[in-house]
Amino acid sequence: MKSLRAVSTMARIRAVVALFMLGACTTVHAQTDPLPSWNEGAAKRAIVEFVQTTTTQGSANFVPPAERIATFDQDGTLWVEHPIYAQVMYCLDRVPAVVKAKPELAKVEPFKTVLSGNREAIAKLPESELLKIVAATLTGISAEDFQAEVKQWIAEAKDPRWKKPYTELTYQPMQEVLKYLRGNGYKTYIVTGGGQDFVRAYSEAVYGIPPEQVVGTAGGTKYGYDKSGKPFLTKEPRLLLNDDKAGKPEGIHLMIGRRPVAAFGNSAGDQQMLEYTKAGDGARLAVLVLHDDAKREYAYGPASGLPATKVGAFTQALHDQARKQGWVVVSIKNDWRRVFAFE
Amino acid sequence: MKSLRAVSTMARIRAVVALFMLGACTTVHAQTDPLPSWNEGAAKRAIVEFVQTTTTQGSANFVPPAERIATFDQDGTLWVEHPIYAQVMYCLDRVPAVVKAKPELAKVEPFKTVLSGNREAIAKLPESELLKIVAATLTGISAEDFQAEVKQWIAEAKDPRWKKPYTELTYQPMQEVLKYLRGNGYKTYIVTGGGQDFVRAYSEAVYGIPPEQVVGTAGGTKYGYDKSGKPFLTKEPRLLLNDDKAGKPEGIHLMIGRRPVAAFGNSAGDQQMLEYTKAGDGARLAVLVLHDDAKREYAYGPASGLPATKVGAFTQALHDQARKQGWVVVSIKNDWRRVFAFE
Repeated sequence: MKSLRAVSTMARIRAVVALFMLGACTTVHAQTDPLPSWNEGAAKRAIVEFVQTTTTQGSANFVPPAERIATFDQDGTLWVEHPIYAQVMYCLDRVPAVVKAKPELAKVEPFKTVLSGNREAIAKLPESELLKIVAATLTGISAEDFQAEVKQWIAEAKDPRWKKPYTELTYQPMQEVLKYLRGNGYKTYIVTGGGQDFVRAYSEAVYGIPPEQVVGTAGGTKYGYDKSGKPFLTKEPRLLLNDDKAGKPEGIHLMIGRRPVAAFGNSAGDQQMLEYTKAGDGARLAVLVLHDDAKREYAYGPASGLPATKVGAFTQALHDQARKQGWVVVSIKNDWRRVFAFE
Repeated sequence: MKSLRAVSTMARIRAVVALFMLGACTTVHAQTDPLPSWNEGAAKRAIVEFVQTTTTQGSANFVPPAERIATFDQDGTLWVEHPIYAQVMYCLDRVPAVVKAKPELAKVEPFKTVLSGNREAIAKLPESELLKIVAATLTGISAEDFQAEVKQWIAEAKDPRWKKPYTELTYQPMQEVLKYLRGNGYKTYIVTGGGQDFVRAYSEAVYGIPPEQVVGTAGGTKYGYDKSGKPFLTKEPRLLLNDDKAGKPEGIHLMIGRRPVAAFGNSAGDQQMLEYTKAGDGARLAVLVLHDDAKREYAYGPASGLPATKVGAFTQALHDQARKQGWVVVSIKNDWRRVFAFE
């Protein structure tokens, strides 16, 4: 009897262990809603069905874990970009420090205008002048010092409308998508037209995305030694990768080396990334966010009510392509139950 | 009695489950030797102590998992590079196909010499001529076709000395280091002067390193559409990153965005990566492989017996720097019990 009971106990232990092991070590398919900030509808359904069909063993669309790459534009896709990119605010805020280090710049445009604090005049600076500010504020500094500067700025700077740090202006529904994808074995990347080093300074804290999974516009660096002989890298005004438009698939090839299975964007800068992703074999997901909620966020692009010639990078043509190629269009107004975590 | 026994059984089940969970879900510190192909000695001890001190919670040198980045040169560090790089063999082997597509090249140098099959003449081609072959064989092809070509070549090509596929000429002791580091939460990267796209075609199969963890010399790509409208990338003869010497820390910054905690190399092309890594804060590991085993592999560099002016990239100066800066020098002859898995 005793040995029989021992056998039976061991068998039960093994069974329980096996159950726990399964629960602990395989993908957890939670019964709870993975996207609670999304309203029920076609967009949410398309995302959930895509994840299920690509991660279910035996599914015709199954994607092996190593190939589960999902790329996300940042500005306007993961956080607010309107009316002005956070990184442009950073560059403008850095001008006084740059001028302090090089006082001769105080009398030179465009630095003079920025220092004047005249918002209207600053807003009117042409792109060629803005690029001078970008070059002066993003280069000529060590890669490590730059990272520390950005970390400090992002901890303090606030969006003027919400009076909150930019990092709180990330879209809660997209944060849920990032976590949902990662929970199902996807490697999530940011693929941004913004500065790669800039976004890397906060991507891990804000999105759970480590620096090596941030692809962005990148400049060269120069290797050298400080006075004590310690080697370090200086950021140079030499463009290596313009990670926008056709530069996005190029950046993805350079930094990842695989065609993504899923991609998320919102502007014409994301067109090539979205069509490149969608054109791969098997199930592919391309998602285009439409900013059509003037009350909770902004309405611009096709939802702005402006004539087609004035909508800039958020064109009707892009939305026409989306419909034609089966991209998922997300209406902030209709598809998102909640826009920000603080709501 | 019955309920008491039930309690006791449940408690035992829970204890066993807890033990199994621990075993299944925390880092496994195996009691077995993680580096069985290494002889006992200073080099092996330094590697094991580095891994232990950087991964033991509470250690002064503890490195959080997200920062555990280890970078490996490929040629001469992970596999045989002597007497000629595998990638150069690939380029030479590809010449007939390139000439078939462009018959006018048959009468033009250096293609004429390569087609002649005259090994002595081929070996004497100057670097400027070799670069023409590299440009012709590595570009003007879609990124996806190139990957397929390399995969096919690497499955068939054989090293002339061992009459084995190049992929079997990886160093077994380094394969063990890769697995040992990964088993302890390190993310392993290849950082090679070789072509990034070339190495990515086999890195996962050969080293367990996915394409996105291969940093190498990289050219630009051009985005376009095929006849059916499907977007694809064409490899262009436009250098983006020369991932050698000072280019290695630059490539690491571009592609990873963190200073590595451990780095492995063997030539002057790795000097900057090794010193850059070693100069970081906390415990850092820099490892330099010395090719001093003419019998089992090759003896070159300081171990070649040649005068200092003839040792090329494997200089005595590099080994002097290694001693001065506390890099670990690995003698293939003395530190490796076994060089190849097939031995």
